[in-house]
Amino acid sequence: MSSERLLRIGETGRAPMLGANYVPSAGWFYSWLDFDADNARRDFADLASIGLDHIRIFPIWPWIQPNRGLIRRRAVDDVLALIDCAAEFDLAVAVDLLQGHLSSFDFVPSWLLTWHQASLFTDATARAGIKAYARAVAGEVSGRPNVFAITLGNEVNNLWPANATTLEGTYDFTAELVETVRTAAPDVACLTSFYDDVWYDPAHPFPQSAAVDLGDVTTVHSWTFNGVGGLDAPLGPATTTHADYLVELAAAAGQPDRAVWLQEVGAAEPDIPPDTAAAFAHATIDAVRANPALCGITWWCSHDIDPRLLDFPRREYSLGLFTVDHQRKPVADVLALAANEPPTLPVARDSISCPVDPRDPATRDQLAPGSEFHRTWTHRRQSGPVAILPPSRSSAVAS
Amino acid sequence: MSSERLLRIGETGRAPMLGANYVPSAGWFYSWLDFDADNARRDFADLASIGLDHIRIFPIWPWIQPNRGLIRRRAVDDVLALIDCAAEFDLAVAVDLLQGHLSSFDFVPSWLLTWHQASLFTDATARAGIKAYARAVAGEVSGRPNVFAITLGNEVNNLWPANATTLEGTYDFTAELVETVRTAAPDVACLTSFYDDVWYDPAHPFPQSAAVDLGDVTTVHSWTFNGVGGLDAPLGPATTTHADYLVELAAAAGQPDRAVWLQEVGAAEPDIPPDTAAAFAHATIDAVRANPALCGITWWCSHDIDPRLLDFPRREYSLGLFTVDHQRKPVADVLALAANEPPTLPVARDSISCPVDPRDPATRDQLAPGSEFHRTWTHRRQSGPVAILPPSRSSAVAS
Repeated sequence: MSSERLLRIGETGRAPMLGANYVPSAGWFYSWLDFDADNARRDFADLASIGLDHIRIFPIWPWIQPNRGLIRRRAVDDVLALIDCAAEFDLAVAVDLLQGHLSSFDFVPSWLLTWHQASLFTDATARAGIKAYARAVAGEVSGRPNVFAITLGNEVNNLWPANATTLEGTYDFTAELVETVRTAAPDVACLTSFYDDVWYDPAHPFPQSAAVDLGDVTTVHSWTFNGVGGLDAPLGPATTTHADYLVELAAAAGQPDRAVWLQEVGAAEPDIPPDTAAAFAHATIDAVRANPALCGITWWCSHDIDPRLLDFPRREYSLGLFTVDHQRKPVADVLALAANEPPTLPVARDSISCPVDPRDPATRDQLAPGSEFHRTWTHRRQSGPVAILPPSRSSAVAS
Repeated sequence: MSSERLLRIGETGRAPMLGANYVPSAGWFYSWLDFDADNARRDFADLASIGLDHIRIFPIWPWIQPNRGLIRRRAVDDVLALIDCAAEFDLAVAVDLLQGHLSSFDFVPSWLLTWHQASLFTDATARAGIKAYARAVAGEVSGRPNVFAITLGNEVNNLWPANATTLEGTYDFTAELVETVRTAAPDVACLTSFYDDVWYDPAHPFPQSAAVDLGDVTTVHSWTFNGVGGLDAPLGPATTTHADYLVELAAAAGQPDRAVWLQEVGAAEPDIPPDTAAAFAHATIDAVRANPALCGITWWCSHDIDPRLLDFPRREYSLGLFTVDHQRKPVADVLALAANEPPTLPVARDSISCPVDPRDPATRDQLAPGSEFHRTWTHRRQSGPVAILPPSRSSAVAS
């Protein structure tokens, strides 16, 4: 079973996994405080009904480890129970550890706030506590046969600037935590997760190397509201190929055989109005699914958020494949179709040389949405897939 | 029953209430996440065994209201269940709302942190959310006949500077919340709570008026580690009469008939070494209990903290009347004696004029431990009780 799990993610020549980031219909992340297995089963029935094969789940760190010395048994049991519910619906599960950041909210334990303020990235005591948490949770969840991956935490770079860090500090933090998880859960893929400033912002203190060298596959999160939507949303070429662009960029920055997981992509208002969500999803999936580096697509997200929960950014409420009361939305139909399509056959690919090293933090702006390079790639991408070649591989091709 | 409750606190000529701040032996505040009524009963049996008549409890705000729009029913039920357990042991209960700050840790919901950062004292949306929380919890707990008081929150001034405020903002915040609680729980005393910078620090953005004019009685928290311990701890006159000094100061700053509750006092290491804790408690209670303004003494705290819970200041672990495994400590014997003593008869009182208005924030340093006034009061206090007369009442005496 464990070798099967390792094959599920990152194996070339296999159809990409297709799943959803699990946002519980009743209470989103707050549902962890009042875990209800039947609510979860009802949600998973929705996802199974459209043929998805996996979910990504988000335990809330400070509710599991409210004190540095306390890992709550019942909270861990709730995570395991959720995973078991997913198994009932044949859903594989990826578990994110350090939430941390979700839907604009940061969940950070009081032992790292105000009177105990310390950077979770660089403070030795904080890191010792986080390692204890990661070791415990990774060890527990990896005992479940349907868990295939553990991500260190959702978009941990959103925990900066509240927690100071540097390029070196971030890399060291990430490497240490990857090692911790691998030791605790050797049979499960270990992943990192960052929002896209790691690819585009030269001032961002998270290096691409932490994304492409550490862990077993690279993940990318494609969100139009981070910049590309301003170019031509909702259905322009830059917007609908942005996920593919990020996968290419991540592939170019990593080793040639490194797989890339499109771990988050969604139709966020107002860039993508509700009546264009299905078309956006279709175009996005159509553009990216044949990418040879791609090992999975995980839609954000499973269910809308109840409007009685306040203070979320407006776009967060309507990102679901299903409504709060389990109505299937048009975007879910697109995923259902994609789930039933046969694997895409390899197609001829054009290529374009990257003007800068995609591993160099200082020149990231030259690859950002709207840059000359991005515009050129987008233009050529309209005629078919376009691989991005880093300078090293460009020279090899040229020689 | 409700009028009886109102009489219990603030009624003159009655023996002061004697109780304990409830620190659960199993898991301190984290126990709210895994509430266990039998654990609570075991703790309350300890407190009842030494004759205490009340406890003060501390629900954790963000676990009850994790989203501004969500008050968790089960969390409220756990608070009610704890109150009912206390009733089984004939313990009256004071409920603090906004924790907020406890034992060096701040618990603040994610809807007021980092990406949602806003001052809970001055931001209109934050205050609307807090009012909803206070209204809901105050309304629920006041339905229990053994609840006699609701405090807005434990030492809310410790939530500054993480939350910006001003003298005016603080007063307005406090007044609005008092009004909210009074409306939701008209039959229960409503109180404020601040640590002693409100009495001593001229730069502190919390005015004495918020402590002495708002709510039904004034509360004071007497801690040697805030300054007085440096004068002559563990058993010198300044240290052992500090609680009485604070009660006098609070009485002088308020209306003549306003009662004062010594809501927190404890034997904190290293100022008070373990082998002097009982003597410190005896001297402190002996000095303060005859104070005519005093309506209650609530020892900090019921139980020690399990050393497996990390990152507390060292002094916090050993403040209990009982150990984690329910062993009665010598300091508990002192409280047991005090609980069985008859009410103190009125005694002749000397008086001293306050050199500044004890309601004036700007001159608070002239009343702080170590100030000329404090040293004079302490010296005279060795010969018997010494009332502090504000300038207004001093003139009346002189005329």
